[in-house]
Amino acid sequence: MKYPITILNLIECFKKLPGIGEKTAERLALSILEFDDDTIQLFSKSLKDTKTKIRRCEKCNNLSETELCEICKDETRNKKILCVVEDPKNVILFEKLNIFDGYYHVLDGLISPIDGINPEDINLASLIDKVKKDKIEEIILALKPSIEGETTSLYISKLLEGINVKITKIAYGIPIGTEIDYVDSLTLEMALENRMDISTNKNS
Amino acid sequence: MKYPITILNLIECFKKLPGIGEKTAERLALSILEFDDDTIQLFSKSLKDTKTKIRRCEKCNNLSETELCEICKDETRNKKILCVVEDPKNVILFEKLNIFDGYYHVLDGLISPIDGINPEDINLASLIDKVKKDKIEEIILALKPSIEGETTSLYISKLLEGINVKITKIAYGIPIGTEIDYVDSLTLEMALENRMDISTNKNS
Repeated sequence: MKYPITILNLIECFKKLPGIGEKTAERLALSILEFDDDTIQLFSKSLKDTKTKIRRCEKCNNLSETELCEICKDETRNKKILCVVEDPKNVILFEKLNIFDGYYHVLDGLISPIDGINPEDINLASLIDKVKKDKIEEIILALKPSIEGETTSLYISKLLEGINVKITKIAYGIPIGTEIDYVDSLTLEMALENRMDISTNKNS
Repeated sequence: MKYPITILNLIECFKKLPGIGEKTAERLALSILEFDDDTIQLFSKSLKDTKTKIRRCEKCNNLSETELCEICKDETRNKKILCVVEDPKNVILFEKLNIFDGYYHVLDGLISPIDGINPEDINLASLIDKVKKDKIEEIILALKPSIEGETTSLYISKLLEGINVKITKIAYGIPIGTEIDYVDSLTLEMALENRMDISTNKNS
């Protein structure tokens, strides 16, 4: 005896989600039985809509249901600054915090030769055109501090060589509220390397 | 800026699942974007099918897509023993282990006055009829060792008073492979209370 085929199919689908194993998938699938009709309809429809309605913004490659995403449609933002991020989730994160008012450029991945992800596999080509055409003054690279993030940052800097644009990178260092004792050695090394001058009697 | 409405809806649906919070729901919803068309179709259809195809077995109340579930359809099983379980998940568990060849009775809950679950809210009425009609010889109560499980077991024993049927309860005690030091006091108390006579010179 196994579960009816509908439940088995549902378990298989849940198992395809990241971090969901056999036991959890079973629990989730069975919990669906207690959902009301409206939720089931919405869930089922939203799943299908991801394939039919969700597209990428033609300008920044962010998730959107229209040609341009909400951010690119907004004419009031700072047109001179472009923040380069790995994926749409990062855009939402920055927007939630309300700490940046320029535009974004979503790479949709990071260069990682070991995983077979080369520069042409991520959304890089349009970045150069955009910088030239829109007369961007500063590009902020907000990529994660990893081999892939560093490689991608380096590659972008090289690509932009000769173009008159300031390239900056978000600071890597000790997170606020952390005990220095518990910070890993690489982070501490980065924090030391990227130390800031806070002397009051500055010469420069 | 928020996610497109489709993604927001999907996040809301995932959040309704047990143990899924805001962050995980977001991660799961975004991972759906990478699913292939076939999986999306299957996922979407299976969700709807839970409302249209999944029903309860008319005999044992187990999940089924037909009038009788696979187990109740099987004429070769032991008709004299009935195992009472809390939910369909327990049936699958017993069946996976292949340790029981009788039939099941799914209560779909346990009596819990504190949560407002009274005897009439769970599938008890048909149990008495079944025991009488099918001339069941033994009822095994396989309910979890909790206040609710104990209350339900006790209630069933009372209900069956006067009917000629043996009522047993699965053993509660120390799990195999556990250090006795780490077992909680209630389990140890249970294990002591339910101790078994293993003397070789038995009188009885």
